Amino acid sequence: MFRKLDSHRAAKRLLNRCETLAGFSALDDGILRAYLTPQHAQANAQVGEWMIAAGMTTWQDQVGNQWGRYEGCLKGAPKLIIGSHLDTVPYAGRYDGILGVLAAIELVSQLNAENRRLPFAIEVVGFCDEEGTRFGTTLIGSKALAGQWQDDWLAIEDDQGTSMYDALIAFGLDPRQCINARLNPENILGFWELHIEQGPVLEAEDLPLGVVTGIAGAKRSMIQLKGQAGHAGTTPMHLRRDSLTGAAELTLAIERIARDIGGDLVATVGQVFSKPGAVNVIAGQTILSLDVRSQSDVVRDKAVEQINDIAEAIAGRRSLELSWNHTHQAPAVLCNAKYQAVFSSAIEQAFENKVPVRRLPSGAGHDAMALAEICPMAMLFLRSPRGLSHHPDEAVIPEDVASGLSVLYQAINKLELDCSQDLVSNSLVS
Amino acid sequence: MFRKLDSHRAAKRLLNRCETLAGFSALDDGILRAYLTPQHAQANAQVGEWMIAAGMTTWQDQVGNQWGRYEGCLKGAPKLIIGSHLDTVPYAGRYDGILGVLAAIELVSQLNAENRRLPFAIEVVGFCDEEGTRFGTTLIGSKALAGQWQDDWLAIEDDQGTSMYDALIAFGLDPRQCINARLNPENILGFWELHIEQGPVLEAEDLPLGVVTGIAGAKRSMIQLKGQAGHAGTTPMHLRRDSLTGAAELTLAIERIARDIGGDLVATVGQVFSKPGAVNVIAGQTILSLDVRSQSDVVRDKAVEQINDIAEAIAGRRSLELSWNHTHQAPAVLCNAKYQAVFSSAIEQAFENKVPVRRLPSGAGHDAMALAEICPMAMLFLRSPRGLSHHPDEAVIPEDVASGLSVLYQAINKLELDCSQDLVSNSLVS
Repeated sequence: MFRKLDSHRAAKRLLNRCETLAGFSALDDGILRAYLTPQHAQANAQVGEWMIAAGMTTWQDQVGNQWGRYEGCLKGAPKLIIGSHLDTVPYAGRYDGILGVLAAIELVSQLNAENRRLPFAIEVVGFCDEEGTRFGTTLIGSKALAGQWQDDWLAIEDDQGTSMYDALIAFGLDPRQCINARLNPENILGFWELHIEQGPVLEAEDLPLGVVTGIAGAKRSMIQLKGQAGHAGTTPMHLRRDSLTGAAELTLAIERIARDIGGDLVATVGQVFSKPGAVNVIAGQTILSLDVRSQSDVVRDKAVEQINDIAEAIAGRRSLELSWNHTHQAPAVLCNAKYQAVFSSAIEQAFENKVPVRRLPSGAGHDAMALAEICPMAMLFLRSPRGLSHHPDEAVIPEDVASGLSVLYQAINKLELDCSQDLVSNSLVS
Repeated sequence: MFRKLDSHRAAKRLLNRCETLAGFSALDDGILRAYLTPQHAQANAQVGEWMIAAGMTTWQDQVGNQWGRYEGCLKGAPKLIIGSHLDTVPYAGRYDGILGVLAAIELVSQLNAENRRLPFAIEVVGFCDEEGTRFGTTLIGSKALAGQWQDDWLAIEDDQGTSMYDALIAFGLDPRQCINARLNPENILGFWELHIEQGPVLEAEDLPLGVVTGIAGAKRSMIQLKGQAGHAGTTPMHLRRDSLTGAAELTLAIERIARDIGGDLVATVGQVFSKPGAVNVIAGQTILSLDVRSQSDVVRDKAVEQINDIAEAIAGRRSLELSWNHTHQAPAVLCNAKYQAVFSSAIEQAFENKVPVRRLPSGAGHDAMALAEICPMAMLFLRSPRGLSHHPDEAVIPEDVASGLSVLYQAINKLELDCSQDLVSNSLVS
């Protein structure tokens, strides 16, 4: 029995496969692989082939997720699901999502090479639509698995006017069956996802990977301040009701509140629109976007409350009309504590205790959020050079990919050991 | 000799004429009268008729300004020019510019009714293009009079691709003659312009009119701050280089600097553009417009310098790249002191000392700026309800219009008196 993973060889093959998948694109000059497109079918077929080569049986489910199962030592054993998504944003990078699917396949390939069967099955999943690129709704594949499929999604049209209903049929799926993609939670040990960080934290601390503690809940709003438009030359400073200087004061206050609260809280004003928007006219109306996230919904809501209080104070002092439009809210989801411990000890083992275990929150959403509804969930983050993602220059360091594979492998070894000590069925899955 | 102006009757006629001119529009649902259009020709013809009815001889000059001359007691006497512009912005109000032309006609009409000849002629001018609506260059009519016509303007095209050269010919003018529109400065006593304030100062102080002290010089720039775009969820506050929060800090500092300097200085950020401009992305690049004005170029330049210093400090502290693009600069122009005194004593006389004389700067540009190059210039501002201008709801209070006519009339009486005391030729025109 060969129980030593050649992680560098596996990482090299994985990165080559990332290149192959990058070729399945609807764009000539970049990567775009959207839900229910020919490129989606191509990717599923290719990934399915790799799954079979790794010793798995494969299928595509009712909504278009690609699956492979590596059976346990007993047929019909409970399963650990490992994977990520295969779809992309327009002009995407090569690794967002894809890396996690291919890493799971490498892991199974190694187990298969070892002729090794675990007390649990491993099911590798390539989710069909995490990004929401085509129909605007995100996490379609994982939500369907978690029993959150909604038939009213079928009426949503893409920007060509094609409904999801028609797109499913064109893809060869039956829209009436989507609801049946839901998994039975009873025989799932959990869901693991390896993903690039898409942020600068690990790079800033010179760490190859980290254990995700939870996925932040986001609250988004559009904040409008209305003042009085006026001539930039003829309106003295003391007679102005300038919505843009009010918005500037609020933007700074949002930054200060986020810094003061600290921890993992982030608050961002990414959009600003000012009307009439002329060089020589005082802005009568300014709209700001606000995005606030934290692993703790309580902390996040406290921040939004503080921002609202200060916005009211600014509006009052400057004689501006304030209005909020809350556009989005998602609760925070914590990663399973015991799986976090499994990952931590796997990191210690893989790096022989030479690399500290960094626990960090995920500010971005992931399929794991949806799966958390039906099973314990855990995530590993791989360092993102320059924090870049959703960009053609998105990158990974090959050495980090090898490290990620080693950690996943050690984590499986640890889980197998726990199973033999009956730690899993009694306490881990809860 | 009837030497008592019925200002209310005259104001009523003036306001009716504003309605007539508003009908000469290229828009069905608003007012637009641009340079060298059929509406320009219609307005000149109509204003010419009113000039003739008021006792003037009329002509249109080489660039399309409409003129009327009310001869002095001696033929070929030196002239006082009074007027404003007849063109408009799109969806304009009824009074911006027009009011000053029609007021001058009412003034002459009164003198004519009195059968009164002054030691100087009055020439009423309706400038052809103050706004720059069609070709982008402003003050064409008055600059041509001041000897600042530029033949390279002829190549400028409107948004239909028609050059100013072709438009002049289509209007019946000879492009080669435009240069000859320049006036001989030797026999000009000065230029007076009555104009709506287009700002809130007089209204805020409950005053019908005020004496303009000077026209502010404007300096305009586009200020760019470059940071690093990043994911709003995955980038912790302390690792951000957010160009938009930097721009917010600068916007607030600009407001504070303007308030601290005080006086007539105004500084405005009217435009803000942030890229990539998504709710969930930290802005990597933000561009602000800056418009700074003062009657004193020294004060204005000092403000721009202070703004630059603080911009550099903010950029340094926040690790942003700062760049300035200076797009426009016009020097301040002071109104002639003795004409300001004439207007002041005319106000005292017209209101029997019951209304204080308010002197105020003009933050907006006017044809008087161009004329100041060749003769002493002075302006009177009429209260603008809600400070509105360049808007269909632009308004005047009829009582204020009557007051304005009374003040102009008293000012002419005062100038006549000064002439008889030989104050004008020796010292006023200098």
